[in-house]
Amino acid sequence: MKVEIINIGDELLIGQVVNTNASWMADQLNQVGIEVVQITAISDTYEHIFQGLDLAKSRADVIILTGGLGPTKDDITKTVLCNYFNTKLVFNEKAFKQVEELFHLRGFKVTAINRKQAEIPANCIPLQNTNGTAPGMWFEQDGKIIISIPGVPFEMHALIKDQIIPQLLEKSDPEVIINKTVLTQGIGESALAEIITDWESNLPDYFKLAYLPQPGIVRLRLTAKGNERNLLQRNLDEQLTELLKIIPNLIFGYNNDTLEQVLQELFLKEKKTLSIAESCTGGYIAQLITSVSGSSSYFMGSVVAYDNEVKEHILGISKDLMIEFGTVSKQVVEQMALKAQSLFNTDYAIATSGIAGPNGGSKEKPVGTTWIAIATPDQGIISKKYLFGEHRGRNIRKAALTAMNKLRLEIEKNISKGLSV
Amino acid sequence: MKVEIINIGDELLIGQVVNTNASWMADQLNQVGIEVVQITAISDTYEHIFQGLDLAKSRADVIILTGGLGPTKDDITKTVLCNYFNTKLVFNEKAFKQVEELFHLRGFKVTAINRKQAEIPANCIPLQNTNGTAPGMWFEQDGKIIISIPGVPFEMHALIKDQIIPQLLEKSDPEVIINKTVLTQGIGESALAEIITDWESNLPDYFKLAYLPQPGIVRLRLTAKGNERNLLQRNLDEQLTELLKIIPNLIFGYNNDTLEQVLQELFLKEKKTLSIAESCTGGYIAQLITSVSGSSSYFMGSVVAYDNEVKEHILGISKDLMIEFGTVSKQVVEQMALKAQSLFNTDYAIATSGIAGPNGGSKEKPVGTTWIAIATPDQGIISKKYLFGEHRGRNIRKAALTAMNKLRLEIEKNISKGLSV
Repeated sequence: MKVEIINIGDELLIGQVVNTNASWMADQLNQVGIEVVQITAISDTYEHIFQGLDLAKSRADVIILTGGLGPTKDDITKTVLCNYFNTKLVFNEKAFKQVEELFHLRGFKVTAINRKQAEIPANCIPLQNTNGTAPGMWFEQDGKIIISIPGVPFEMHALIKDQIIPQLLEKSDPEVIINKTVLTQGIGESALAEIITDWESNLPDYFKLAYLPQPGIVRLRLTAKGNERNLLQRNLDEQLTELLKIIPNLIFGYNNDTLEQVLQELFLKEKKTLSIAESCTGGYIAQLITSVSGSSSYFMGSVVAYDNEVKEHILGISKDLMIEFGTVSKQVVEQMALKAQSLFNTDYAIATSGIAGPNGGSKEKPVGTTWIAIATPDQGIISKKYLFGEHRGRNIRKAALTAMNKLRLEIEKNISKGLSV
Repeated sequence: MKVEIINIGDELLIGQVVNTNASWMADQLNQVGIEVVQITAISDTYEHIFQGLDLAKSRADVIILTGGLGPTKDDITKTVLCNYFNTKLVFNEKAFKQVEELFHLRGFKVTAINRKQAEIPANCIPLQNTNGTAPGMWFEQDGKIIISIPGVPFEMHALIKDQIIPQLLEKSDPEVIINKTVLTQGIGESALAEIITDWESNLPDYFKLAYLPQPGIVRLRLTAKGNERNLLQRNLDEQLTELLKIIPNLIFGYNNDTLEQVLQELFLKEKKTLSIAESCTGGYIAQLITSVSGSSSYFMGSVVAYDNEVKEHILGISKDLMIEFGTVSKQVVEQMALKAQSLFNTDYAIATSGIAGPNGGSKEKPVGTTWIAIATPDQGIISKKYLFGEHRGRNIRKAALTAMNKLRLEIEKNISKGLSV
C-alpha cells in the first residue's frame, strides 16, 4: 500500500511554517509498515488542489490531504473535493452531533459556522474529529482511498492514530519495512564510506543504506524490506553486529540516542561524577550535558575559562606554562582537565582548548586547531589534537561531540578493565 | 518567476527528518519576492526523481533540487540528471580545484571519492560549494532553469544565499517586496498582540504582519508590497518607528540580530566585561555568548555551578544561606551574581537559579520557577523571579534569553545615566 501526503497551505510555501505535520504522519505510517512515496506542499487554490489530487492518484493507493477545512473563506478543500467527485455538500447529522457533544463538554454554544462545518460531500464517510469541529472525510473511488483531514496538529494526530491507521491496516497487507539508524562520531562521511565499503557492497538486495551527515556526527540508516518481520529483524541485527565489529569505537548509539544521554546512562550506572573546563567550546558541552533531565546526579559543574586570567586564577593553570606552550597546547589542556578534576572533586573531567575562529589562527595553529583532554579516575590523563575546520559554530560543535565521545570510550575502557565500582 | 522545490531523500518520507530545508528556502525566496508554487519530497530512486523533474517543469520556471549529491552509493541525483539531459558526467577541473583547496586548508588528503564528486554533467555550470565537496549545478533547458544542490543545510544555505538568489534576481523582474523583522523578548504572542492591536489595525492595506513565536522570543515580520522601493522603505521605517514607541524595552533587534550579538556590541562600545554564574541554564548562556566571534574581548568566563557544593566551594555561597532560603531564591541568586562579579573581576555578572524540570518542583516552587540576577558596575544588584513553564528545554532557553535581555536593559540604563566610560 503506497501513501501520498498532500499538505495544503500558503504558510508552507512562504516558509513561515515548517512542515512538521508531514514528518509526523510519515513517521507514524512508516512505523506500521505503510510506505509514503511522496509528500507535497501546495497552496490553497482550486487548481493546485485538483491537479495535486489527480497526479497523486496516478502514483499512490491512498492520498491523505491535510488543511483547508477551517470555517473561513480561504478554506476551499471541501469545494474542490465536491467538484472532483462530482457531488454536493450535504448536512451530516452524525458529524453535527459530534460537534454538539464536544461543545457541550467545553461549555461552548454551537454557532451557524459550526453547523456549516458538518456539511460534507455526499459520497464520503465522516471520521470523528475528537479535538475539533471539522470532521475528517474518507472517500473511495476506482480502488483508491482519498482522505481529507484538518491540518491543526492536535486534531490531525488523533485522526491519524485512532482512525486512519487502524482502517488502512485492515485494508492492506503491508509489506514489512524496518530500519535502524546507527550513530557514529569521530569520522567524516567519505572516510566512513571507505572503511565500510566491503560490508556495504555485501548487503543483500533488500537492504538500503543511507548516509545522513551532521556536524560532528554521521548517521547511517539501514532499511530492510520484505514479508516476514521476524526474519527481517534478525537479518538486520546480524548486519549491524557485523558493522559494529568493523567500527566499534565510532558507534555511540542507535536511532534517537544522543551522546549526552549515553554518557548519563554510563555515569549513573558506574556511579561516577564529571566536571568540565571549557575554553573554545565556551559552555557548549555543559549545556548539552545539562539538557538531559537528571544530569545533576553526576554532573557537578564547569568552569568556562574563556580568558587566560580565568585559566590562571580560577583553574590554577601556571602562567609560565601558558606562555611557554600557548593556551592551545597539550600541556595546558591536560592541566585544565586535571585542575577541573580536583577543583570539582570529580572522577572524570574534560577540557577543551582551541581556536574556534574565524580569527586567531596562525601558520602553526590554524583556525580549527583544538586540543581535548580527559582526566580519568586512576590519575590518568589522555589528550589529542584535532584540526576541525574554518567555521566557528561547526568547530565548537565538533569539539564538544569529539570530547564527549572520547569520554565515552574512556569510561567503557575503564569498565572493561574492571575499574568500575 | 515561479519556483518549485524538490527535496530528495528517504529520510523525509519515513519521517526521520523534518523538512526544514524546504521552509528555509521558501522563506529566503519569499523575502526577495520570488514565489514558491510547490514543495515536493521524494525518495532517492531513479523514477521518482525523473518524473518529479518532468512534472515540476510543467508548473514552474525554476526547479531547485536538494539532496542525493553525496559521495556514497545511495546518492543518484547526478546519474538521473545525466539521463534527463541526455549527457555524460565529465571531470570538472575548476570544481576539483575548489575541493582540493578546502581539503588542503583542513589538512585532509583528497581521496578518489572526492575526485569523483568533481565529475558533473557536461551541460551544467558548476556553482562553488564553499562549505563542502559536492558542487552545485545550474542547468538551462527550454527556457527553464534547473538547479541541483546538496541537502546538507550548511552547504545549501551558502549556495542559495550567495549564488542562486542573486543569479535568479538578475533573471527576474519581481514586484518590489520588502520586509523587516522586529525581534522582541519578554512577552508572549497573545499579550504582544493586545498591546500593539491599534498599531496593527491602522497599518495600510499593502502591509502584512506575521507573528513568528519561538521559545523566549516573538518575531514580528512586517512586509510591504508595491512598485516604488524607496517610498515603500520610508513607509515601513515610519511604521516601525511608531512600533518602537509602543514597546521600547521589548525590542532588542531586527532581522537576523541575536541577543548575543547585540550584547557584544554594547559591551565592546562601553568597554565593559562580563562573567556568569549559571545553575539552571547549565552553560547555555555562556555558549550563546561565545558563539559570536570576538566575544573573548569582553566575556571572561562562567562557572556552571550545577551542584550545591560547587556553589559553596567555587563561588563561595554560604551554605547557611542555601539552607535557609533554598538555592532557587532571591538571596542565593543575588549572591551568585555578586560572587561571579568579584571572582572573575568583571563589570557585570549574570546569575540564574531555577527548576528546569521535569522533576524537582514543589507546591511553593513549581517547575519553571527561575530567579535571575544582574550585578552592575555601581555595586548594584537587581533580581527577579519568573515562572516559565513545564518543558525543560524551553525553560532553559527562556531563562537564558530573559537574563540576556535584562542585562541589555541594565547596560542601556547605565549608558543613559552617563555611567559609561
